Amino acid sequence: MADASAKPVVIASNRGPVSFRREGGELLGRRGSGGLVSGLAPLVESGRATWIAAAMSDADREASAAGGGVVEVDGLSVHLLEIDPETQRRHYDEISNSTLWFVHHGLYDLVRSPAYDVDWWQSWESYRSVNAAFAEAIVSTAPTGAVVLVQDYHLCLVARMARVERDDLRFVHFHHTPFAGPEEFRVLPPTVRAELLEGLACHDACGFHTSRWESNYRACQADAGDTTGRTFHATLNSDLDDMRSVARSPACLEAGEQIAAVVGDRMVLARVDRMELSKNIARGFAAYDRLLETRADLHGRVVFLATCYPSRLGVEEYRRYRDEVVAAAELVNERWGTPDWRPVELMTDDDFPRSVAVLKTYDVLLVNPIRDGLNLVAKEGPAVNERDGTLLLSTEAGAFAELDDEVVPLFPFDIEGTARAIADALDMEPGQRRHRAKALAEAVERRTPQSWLEDQLNAV
Amino acid sequence: MADASAKPVVIASNRGPVSFRREGGELLGRRGSGGLVSGLAPLVESGRATWIAAAMSDADREASAAGGGVVEVDGLSVHLLEIDPETQRRHYDEISNSTLWFVHHGLYDLVRSPAYDVDWWQSWESYRSVNAAFAEAIVSTAPTGAVVLVQDYHLCLVARMARVERDDLRFVHFHHTPFAGPEEFRVLPPTVRAELLEGLACHDACGFHTSRWESNYRACQADAGDTTGRTFHATLNSDLDDMRSVARSPACLEAGEQIAAVVGDRMVLARVDRMELSKNIARGFAAYDRLLETRADLHGRVVFLATCYPSRLGVEEYRRYRDEVVAAAELVNERWGTPDWRPVELMTDDDFPRSVAVLKTYDVLLVNPIRDGLNLVAKEGPAVNERDGTLLLSTEAGAFAELDDEVVPLFPFDIEGTARAIADALDMEPGQRRHRAKALAEAVERRTPQSWLEDQLNAV
Repeated sequence: MADASAKPVVIASNRGPVSFRREGGELLGRRGSGGLVSGLAPLVESGRATWIAAAMSDADREASAAGGGVVEVDGLSVHLLEIDPETQRRHYDEISNSTLWFVHHGLYDLVRSPAYDVDWWQSWESYRSVNAAFAEAIVSTAPTGAVVLVQDYHLCLVARMARVERDDLRFVHFHHTPFAGPEEFRVLPPTVRAELLEGLACHDACGFHTSRWESNYRACQADAGDTTGRTFHATLNSDLDDMRSVARSPACLEAGEQIAAVVGDRMVLARVDRMELSKNIARGFAAYDRLLETRADLHGRVVFLATCYPSRLGVEEYRRYRDEVVAAAELVNERWGTPDWRPVELMTDDDFPRSVAVLKTYDVLLVNPIRDGLNLVAKEGPAVNERDGTLLLSTEAGAFAELDDEVVPLFPFDIEGTARAIADALDMEPGQRRHRAKALAEAVERRTPQSWLEDQLNAV
Repeated sequence: MADASAKPVVIASNRGPVSFRREGGELLGRRGSGGLVSGLAPLVESGRATWIAAAMSDADREASAAGGGVVEVDGLSVHLLEIDPETQRRHYDEISNSTLWFVHHGLYDLVRSPAYDVDWWQSWESYRSVNAAFAEAIVSTAPTGAVVLVQDYHLCLVARMARVERDDLRFVHFHHTPFAGPEEFRVLPPTVRAELLEGLACHDACGFHTSRWESNYRACQADAGDTTGRTFHATLNSDLDDMRSVARSPACLEAGEQIAAVVGDRMVLARVDRMELSKNIARGFAAYDRLLETRADLHGRVVFLATCYPSRLGVEEYRRYRDEVVAAAELVNERWGTPDWRPVELMTDDDFPRSVAVLKTYDVLLVNPIRDGLNLVAKEGPAVNERDGTLLLSTEAGAFAELDDEVVPLFPFDIEGTARAIADALDMEPGQRRHRAKALAEAVERRTPQSWLEDQLNAV
């Protein structure tokens, strides 16, 4: 077998590593950040890899058209596929981010949703169309013998479609979300389940962040009669060097001063999340409320810095969730607040340097999702924290499997248990705190975006 | 090994086969019906078995106290345990019918519930207490070497508690609901999961209605490291002779005449359900709405007899569901009704003879639960139907595994597919209808309450 490390590589992801916006008369390109881009971009820059992604906005589409389908930003060149906006909306909003995201995270209120009506079935056709567009781009541009790295749940059908015409290619799928257990996966229509599983089975290997999602996937395939597929698990990391350089930036230092003025000499409980249904923000406030109910000695001595920036507000379900989060925070402040002390500081604007400043400052970081593919905040926090902070981590986050020895575990549906876990963390001896924080800071450095990339390439 | 068929038997179930009410000054006892009572009562009457159950009402408690803990109705004698009403409420309403029922049927809107607060944990203690009361009664009354048949999710911890003092006994558990898959079971707190699984593992065998729930249970135990437990599956039947004698009763014949006056010469689509969250009633109306949207030729030619009687109205979630069901039915009538034709006849009072009359009358019976341990209506309908009716059955009902060859399958979340399935069933040729109806009527007779009992006794 040829050495995979020498082969050409094609990356396919729905969202690309660059995006455009129109400012004045000009199209301005920007390079994205995050572990995926950090892990994969060097491969593109070296000339070994090409990247295929969808144009996500009108500005992206213009840039793509201007470049004959290829754009370049800061030396990073990307094939941007132009997809009809309505088809794209159905693929992205209706199927990927509603149906598949909900199924894999267990977010449906099944008594009421999903309801696969004629409109949904039309969206499913759009999911197929977008996958076909990616497959076509791979078929026509992939170098002979390339390894194609297909990213995430948006593109489950691509490999099967492309293989028909290009049996020289090898395909690796990486799934960034959780993978549903077999009973949960049954919420999808039988024909759709079969199509997704057959699509995924057409990869030479399928990767997941942790063994839990990997074995769920294997169990789903086994239910469908297939026990032969190759799988692996390999966690991604944020680019922690990038995080640290943000932590040193003037914007972050300034935000830190503002936070310090609010906090004073109080202890800091913190969280940093999108207002995403899976993040379990309201139960976090309920647990804090319970803590204050049982621990009068903490009144005035702790502040909860809750950085929760809005997400997908075009979707009614997310607007409702935002309202619930805001109401839950207000309830705590109304119940326990005094003229000198606001127990919760809820910050809902998306301000990355300030989020990093919060992570530098926490004594206790609450990461309590009901389910999470990995959860990067659980790694980013310990990498930049400067107060020997303790991480309270949900057993239902993918990162738990990596960090379980160094965190205080919590079960996200347990209000009483979460309140106790927060108390334990706040009460922890300085020596023990320091010891844990050090071990945790080391643990989050074990993996890099590059090691994640290597695991994918080594899988074939 | 001794022949199990000769051993004495103890039956333990939360609700017993008899109940009492106070009328005037008198305590009146009534014997319950249904497959469980039909299957197990003969064993009690023959003197081989004793039955232990909880007193469920003040009248039950009085009757129990008057009889020194034992009551007798129509020759059926039962140990009725007196349990403190608040403890019982917590065991029954909070843990059994909210938490465990919801977990095994997948009914939680996980973004918002469950939330295990201090009150819930107190209810969990009550669940333990009630199980301990049953265990104590078994320890003190079971004949030497008896087989104890423990019924359902209310009593998962009994065997483990009783075994400590009575190692001469053998225990069989039978679970009448679905059993959650491992990911769904993880919604319970870790300590509770462990306690339930260890409790169930203390039985000599655990039984379920179908292999699907059996293998979910085995997968949950395997996740907890135990792959050795004995399991079996054995479906229960209603007492179909009993159903047929109701079908011949004056009350049922009278209800039939009233229905005939409403229906006229139209085709009858029907359903008979509790307004239980798992029964998927609103999506059934949405599918019927879609049918009428696509098939103008059916306007005025079909009527949907929807017998949906209220359930658990003490629980807010069930009241909300009832309102949604009523609104969904009204929507169809407002949209498509004419002065001469009301498309949906929603009947919400609990009238058993009328429900049987509806089952006699249907051309198409819609049984579309999102998940169901078995679903007895799917067997009772074909047993009494007189119009060569067709059964549309959810793939997610336990009964589907038994009847799949003779029914039109439907996937309960698929509105479009359900509308098509109803159309196919209404359009079916008379010859094919007759052929299927005959095969189905035979299929539902394959099992009796007695065969279910024998399977339990044969399991040890």
